[in-house]
Amino acid sequence: MTASIFDKTRTLFDLPEGVIYLDGNSLGALPRAARERVAREVNHSWGHELIRAWNTCGWIDLPAEVGRKIGRLIGAPEGSVIAADSTSINLFKALTAALRLAGERKVILSDTGNFPSDLYIAEGVIETMGQGHRLKVVAPDDVEAAIGDDVAVLMLTEVDYATGRKHDMKALTAKARAHGVLTIWDLAHSAGAFPVDLHGAGADFAIGCGYKYLNGGPGAPAFIYVRPELQEKITPSLSGWLGHDAPFQFELGYRPAGSIDRMRAGTPPVLSMAALDAALSVWDGIEMADVRARSIELCEIFIREVEARCPTLTLASPRNPEQRGSQVSFRHEQGFAIMQALIAHLVIGDFRAPNIIRFGFTPLYVTPADAVKAAEVLERVMKERLYEKPEYQKKGKVT
Amino acid sequence: MTASIFDKTRTLFDLPEGVIYLDGNSLGALPRAARERVAREVNHSWGHELIRAWNTCGWIDLPAEVGRKIGRLIGAPEGSVIAADSTSINLFKALTAALRLAGERKVILSDTGNFPSDLYIAEGVIETMGQGHRLKVVAPDDVEAAIGDDVAVLMLTEVDYATGRKHDMKALTAKARAHGVLTIWDLAHSAGAFPVDLHGAGADFAIGCGYKYLNGGPGAPAFIYVRPELQEKITPSLSGWLGHDAPFQFELGYRPAGSIDRMRAGTPPVLSMAALDAALSVWDGIEMADVRARSIELCEIFIREVEARCPTLTLASPRNPEQRGSQVSFRHEQGFAIMQALIAHLVIGDFRAPNIIRFGFTPLYVTPADAVKAAEVLERVMKERLYEKPEYQKKGKVT
Repeated sequence: MTASIFDKTRTLFDLPEGVIYLDGNSLGALPRAARERVAREVNHSWGHELIRAWNTCGWIDLPAEVGRKIGRLIGAPEGSVIAADSTSINLFKALTAALRLAGERKVILSDTGNFPSDLYIAEGVIETMGQGHRLKVVAPDDVEAAIGDDVAVLMLTEVDYATGRKHDMKALTAKARAHGVLTIWDLAHSAGAFPVDLHGAGADFAIGCGYKYLNGGPGAPAFIYVRPELQEKITPSLSGWLGHDAPFQFELGYRPAGSIDRMRAGTPPVLSMAALDAALSVWDGIEMADVRARSIELCEIFIREVEARCPTLTLASPRNPEQRGSQVSFRHEQGFAIMQALIAHLVIGDFRAPNIIRFGFTPLYVTPADAVKAAEVLERVMKERLYEKPEYQKKGKVT
Repeated sequence: MTASIFDKTRTLFDLPEGVIYLDGNSLGALPRAARERVAREVNHSWGHELIRAWNTCGWIDLPAEVGRKIGRLIGAPEGSVIAADSTSINLFKALTAALRLAGERKVILSDTGNFPSDLYIAEGVIETMGQGHRLKVVAPDDVEAAIGDDVAVLMLTEVDYATGRKHDMKALTAKARAHGVLTIWDLAHSAGAFPVDLHGAGADFAIGCGYKYLNGGPGAPAFIYVRPELQEKITPSLSGWLGHDAPFQFELGYRPAGSIDRMRAGTPPVLSMAALDAALSVWDGIEMADVRARSIELCEIFIREVEARCPTLTLASPRNPEQRGSQVSFRHEQGFAIMQALIAHLVIGDFRAPNIIRFGFTPLYVTPADAVKAAEVLERVMKERLYEKPEYQKKGKVT
């Protein structure tokens, strides 16, 4: 039953012949619908309709429409998600809004398993606001104990980008709420990867990425969620014209829109946004519980096969699938070169400094046979020490 | 000579049959090169190269490459412009950076001819920084007199989006410098419209838009310029990972890149960025002085023809072409309906509340014959009172 669903979804993607693509957690594969949609937006909407397309081709509604489609995948009620800007920019919006709501509390609590990028944004927020906020970064296992009445905002990424370790969003959010702590969840490696229930967990803010498990294309717009009860209470720091209550009245003063629209800032990149919108159509009729079951199946196969074949690789991900996102990571001091060798042999994952090789499992287009085959190629790379070849030691700009 | 240049550039665009497009100041027409490039980025780079495309297809260098191409059009030295985010977001970056450089001075000076959107962003910056900054908005003619030793930042848009009135960037920047005032110029209606000399004027910051006269496509990424001497002195508020000195080292702490790169924030929308990159190829071998001469010719023809044919329309733009950007605006209380009727008759301009009809003249694809023909259609709309038809009174979402 589940297998047949995914036999079908696989046909919705264009995958290069012979490649096993295990990097959907970094850049999702190309949905055929996105290819067709982008061509139509360029040729018809831009080329023929020109400026009229904002009305006639629905460009003005795209951020809300994309937000609605993403919302369904992350347990967000209607009208609580909007697509806009990048994940970093959206985190800036969420964090400035949360800190202003938090009043006198000054501590932003995060962990070393967060994206460094999120910690950078927190630094920028603290410097820009200049009000003595402080970023407290603890180990992932110490987060729960560190939640207390001194904390303004708990800012976490649910799944560790390096190891795949998954936080217990529900428990941590509940404890935060009990202590009056606002929560911001980064769902970059969650949305489209497994079921998320923002509403059920009582999360205040969430942000995430359109180009990983949502397959929206390179640098696709990101999204932001604000709990409905908070939307009218927050003052946007990035008070752009499309977040205005009446953007086409051209009033000189800013009045925020009375909805999640106030989290919009400037004009969105329509071609990239349209690709994401079309990409989300592959989720029609898909249940995230089925995706999760298949993802665990794929990850378990891969771990079993790799551990049986490659004794010098150390599992960096949690062994318990309930504590893992939809990725598997291993450590090896030659990780970089091992990944280059794998890619040269058409098994595409990626490397994260200093020593992690990552493999993302995306049930929409990765099969159990792919997981076994990838382990076989990895076995060959290790046994024949292919990674020692000089061409695999050479770093590119993006590594 | 000049005419023949523009005969050639016109062939580089896809224009719908029968349409006279005078809205290139809102959304530039589709360059054929952009259409081909986007198709290649989708099919080959994303579809086939997948994550490898960051290296193999040059995605990582796109923001700098686009910045370099725009820099040539606005008198910006190598390494001083980067493409990123939206104009609003880039203004936030520039204004927060400038205010922090300005120290104890608290006044942001702007004018009523600025984009409301820019004023909104200034409001957001003031609220977010919470340090008692104040936005002082004067009439455009009063800006020069208001520049004094109390002003921290002069924040202006060179060309008034409604009337086309053009500030004297060189004179105002010189006076600002003499008073120790930092300058931020919004070039949304300047870049690609006429010669700009940021370096010669001594401007400190500039921002601008990729989708108007630069023809980068709907919501194309914007750009930001920082005077080279200031680049290492500023602390980014939007401290995203691609502005880090070593983004792929994944250090937990933020260290800004030692160049204009620090004005990058998150991952750019690659498809939209690639469209802009390709669109900029139409400027190869084009001198902005020629563009300016032709633009003035087109605007003068249009003003002359409209004034001779449509006595109830009032010129809203400066009559002196030296004080005008590359657009012509008229006022009429039925402006909205007049523009709808014009669009229905395939002359596309736009309307700006409360009573302005705008016509952008883009020499790359608009001819003197188009200017005359547009005036003829406008004459018919006015004389036959076509704008009184109910279908032209109905507003869309974007008006």
